[in-house]
Amino acid sequence: MSPNTTLGQQLPVLSEDVSSWKGASVLSVTQMTPGGLALVFEIAHQMRMMVQTQGADTRCQGKLLATVFYEASTRTACSFQAAMMRLGGNYLHVDGEGGNSSAAKKGESLTDTIRCLECYTDVTVLRHYIKGSVGTVIEAATKPVINAGDGVGEHPTQALLDVFTIYDELKLPLSAKATANSKPLTIVLLGDLKHGRTVHSLAKLLAKSHTAGVVLRYCAPDGLELPEEIQEYVAQFDHVLQETVTDLREACQQANILYVTRVQRERFESDEAYQAVKGSYVVDTELMQQVPSDMIVLHPLPRIDEIDPAVDSDPRAAYFREMENGMYVRMALLALVLGKV
Amino acid sequence: MSPNTTLGQQLPVLSEDVSSWKGASVLSVTQMTPGGLALVFEIAHQMRMMVQTQGADTRCQGKLLATVFYEASTRTACSFQAAMMRLGGNYLHVDGEGGNSSAAKKGESLTDTIRCLECYTDVTVLRHYIKGSVGTVIEAATKPVINAGDGVGEHPTQALLDVFTIYDELKLPLSAKATANSKPLTIVLLGDLKHGRTVHSLAKLLAKSHTAGVVLRYCAPDGLELPEEIQEYVAQFDHVLQETVTDLREACQQANILYVTRVQRERFESDEAYQAVKGSYVVDTELMQQVPSDMIVLHPLPRIDEIDPAVDSDPRAAYFREMENGMYVRMALLALVLGKV
Amino acid sequence: MSPNTTLGQQLPVLSEDVSSWKGASVLSVTQMTPGGLALVFEIAHQMRMMVQTQGADTRCQGKLLATVFYEASTRTACSFQAAMMRLGGNYLHVDGEGGNSSAAKKGESLTDTIRCLECYTDVTVLRHYIKGSVGTVIEAATKPVINAGDGVGEHPTQALLDVFTIYDELKLPLSAKATANSKPLTIVLLGDLKHGRTVHSLAKLLAKSHTAGVVLRYCAPDGLELPEEIQEYVAQFDHVLQETVTDLREACQQANILYVTRVQRERFESDEAYQAVKGSYVVDTELMQQVPSDMIVLHPLPRIDEIDPAVDSDPRAAYFREMENGMYVRMALLALVLGKV
Repeated sequence: MSPNTTLGQQLPVLSEDVSSWKGASVLSVTQMTPGGLALVFEIAHQMRMMVQTQGADTRCQGKLLATVFYEASTRTACSFQAAMMRLGGNYLHVDGEGGNSSAAKKGESLTDTIRCLECYTDVTVLRHYIKGSVGTVIEAATKPVINAGDGVGEHPTQALLDVFTIYDELKLPLSAKATANSKPLTIVLLGDLKHGRTVHSLAKLLAKSHTAGVVLRYCAPDGLELPEEIQEYVAQFDHVLQETVTDLREACQQANILYVTRVQRERFESDEAYQAVKGSYVVDTELMQQVPSDMIVLHPLPRIDEIDPAVDSDPRAAYFREMENGMYVRMALLALVLGKV
Repeated sequence: MSPNTTLGQQLPVLSEDVSSWKGASVLSVTQMTPGGLALVFEIAHQMRMMVQTQGADTRCQGKLLATVFYEASTRTACSFQAAMMRLGGNYLHVDGEGGNSSAAKKGESLTDTIRCLECYTDVTVLRHYIKGSVGTVIEAATKPVINAGDGVGEHPTQALLDVFTIYDELKLPLSAKATANSKPLTIVLLGDLKHGRTVHSLAKLLAKSHTAGVVLRYCAPDGLELPEEIQEYVAQFDHVLQETVTDLREACQQANILYVTRVQRERFESDEAYQAVKGSYVVDTELMQQVPSDMIVLHPLPRIDEIDPAVDSDPRAAYFREMENGMYVRMALLALVLGKV
Repeated sequence: MSPNTTLGQQLPVLSEDVSSWKGASVLSVTQMTPGGLALVFEIAHQMRMMVQTQGADTRCQGKLLATVFYEASTRTACSFQAAMMRLGGNYLHVDGEGGNSSAAKKGESLTDTIRCLECYTDVTVLRHYIKGSVGTVIEAATKPVINAGDGVGEHPTQALLDVFTIYDELKLPLSAKATANSKPLTIVLLGDLKHGRTVHSLAKLLAKSHTAGVVLRYCAPDGLELPEEIQEYVAQFDHVLQETVTDLREACQQANILYVTRVQRERFESDEAYQAVKGSYVVDTELMQQVPSDMIVLHPLPRIDEIDPAVDSDPRAAYFREMENGMYVRMALLALVLGKV
């Protein structure tokens, strides 16, 4: 019995009806209807308002989250933990990589580990390095599990926070009904488009959900282009146009969003090859003077050299707001699956 | 001055009087009178009712627990942490093995480390790999310390949760007065009975406390039998009958409880020897059809191959309920020593 | 642009006016006016009263602290975490050394890591092994950062808790106005005065702040004397007298405080050299009979052999009270920078 076959049958569809979320596990954004997506965004927006005015509330008081990470991720783990605490709940953390996890050393299955932790907590956030592993756990789990990344598989909260940030920064309506009236978007995807899981999820989610029209402009060094299968998935939507543009300045013309990812030195055959392309893919204050005055710059972070810190103070640099939105989106998901909306 | 001599004098007797628990340290189940044991079970039962109806309460709001683990234990650490949070308190964790513990590296004594942490918190849960170490710390401590396992020494909360689960699953009365009227039990102890600390504590506690009569049936591979000293301890109680049965199906006849432990491959001289016995000690759906229809299956977990996951959905499979009971028993202990009953 | 030049300009002066603290970062005790120092002590004193009577309060409910440690420190991290929880807030921990920190492995700058965590939390406590690093982070941070030690640089909370404990144990007035009427102090600094950052900070802070007069008596093995630059800094204050006394008993004559630090074996050229001096620098019950009956013994802990545990029960042994004061001083700082006084 392959997990993939089974999963489709067992995973709930997550719609604009809040009751479809209560007690549900979240493996993938593909579970979400357009209305379900809009619901997450609306609640994330409310969470931001709440945090900015009062810091936290108590709707999840007495609720416990287990964050279980078999692959390190400071940002994702901390933002889920902070999200739970800002809802009035609390968490315990299991570092599956080494730290405090004795279970894995003793040969326990991942499913058993999570089923044990479920005995103590109300919801689990799980990251694992093996694609499909989180889905397998969800099949056996008795309480909600949220996928925080399963290897080269899905990382649904990252895609959600990216699209939320795009809509929010461009002041597009967040509600499902309004999205149909939304305006077309031009988005530049810059950097290592081959290995960046974040970029793959974002391209697919935008293509599927932004029916008002999307231009995706790919700007990647030789050999680091977006994989064929992602391009083919995107190509099935008539409202999406895909373009490949080598020059960054040219790519940014009329763009609404510049989404930057790391170009990792170790992906190049030689340091010369890296140095040769590096300069043309760096976002600095000079570039920012040549691009549209309302073009928003995003980055999933961490960054190395691809965005000069001097750009941070530019109002168009939205990557730290993007970080913050990650907490609001995760607050929305936790509140939804715990039935606390 | 040997710790053992001293400990007997300094450790409080824990009785059915809640005031005997307040501020007390818990090193061993031998501190508990039959009434004290019944008190823990009654409060654990109340805790389960509370968690199942309202999730948590606030009786320990503002109270802090330090979980200090010099030996990894996902389950024990997490269940104490969850227990404290479900009582409205909070915790901080010190990973003595490596992680965030600088003190041990600098040569500080265990006693000093705990005395420092006591300056910040209200109660300490301590696991250490050296037998007797927790007792030594308790002598110097100024606030309650709960033993979460000291090497091959005691692991009192495991024994408590096992006996609580046996009584609960068999619907035996939990109160001290009623226990005398309780019915005799037949319990199969299966697997590596030589190295399993859990099994040793369980056998001793049952023999001492279940005065209505106990049959203990040992079912272990050659060379992994229950140690002589445990058998001798048990033999002093007239109401206990010890039996050795090689065949698992035969052992389960008229049994109330099948308590399974891991048979660890590395304990065998050869892989052939392991494979030879392995099959006869696996609990699978076939076996479950041949045993009493009300025989409860327990396992301290983690399990490897000794229980087939297909058994999990059998109503007699109680090992995940056993896990959950661990939290309720620990909530009871924390509430008792903090004077919050 | 050197951090040091910039820092002086950007770091706020922290005075007796509570509004000067709200939202401020704390890099160094040099930011604090005498009135600011007295304010910390007064609030720390109130915090102790509160904790001793009610355990905790809820003034920081919904507030989140990030403790970020690139160098292990059980005591400092735990006391900040406990401090935040006793104020009703909560925390998340990032172990920069290894554990759960993926960001550093990916080459992210320390500043970026902290700016990301700031998106989730309200205040950061940062320890890093590089001198000046915390100051650099503070320049870029948008929320308060408290220095928990930056290599051989500053460790302001340790110096604060030491001086608070000295005043408290000697029953000197804590308020700024009263300090001028305070009495002169004689303080013996014992042990490795060369490498002990704690001793350096304490000497400087006392020299600067205790204007009623201070005698500093240095008692160190050959080669482990207080560095010249610290002695020169202290020498600029007319109300300070510096003395070097080789014999510990002699040094303690008329002393108010004996401040002990570790003499680390590895600092000596040979084990013989270590053994030769070791005995003369050990505080034991015999020594305690020969020193003033009101001389208080302090130690930043952890200790190895330099104080015999038999001294712990002497009322003059104040090092565990010193530990506890660390939590109260940190509660005061957290409450001040979060505007919750």
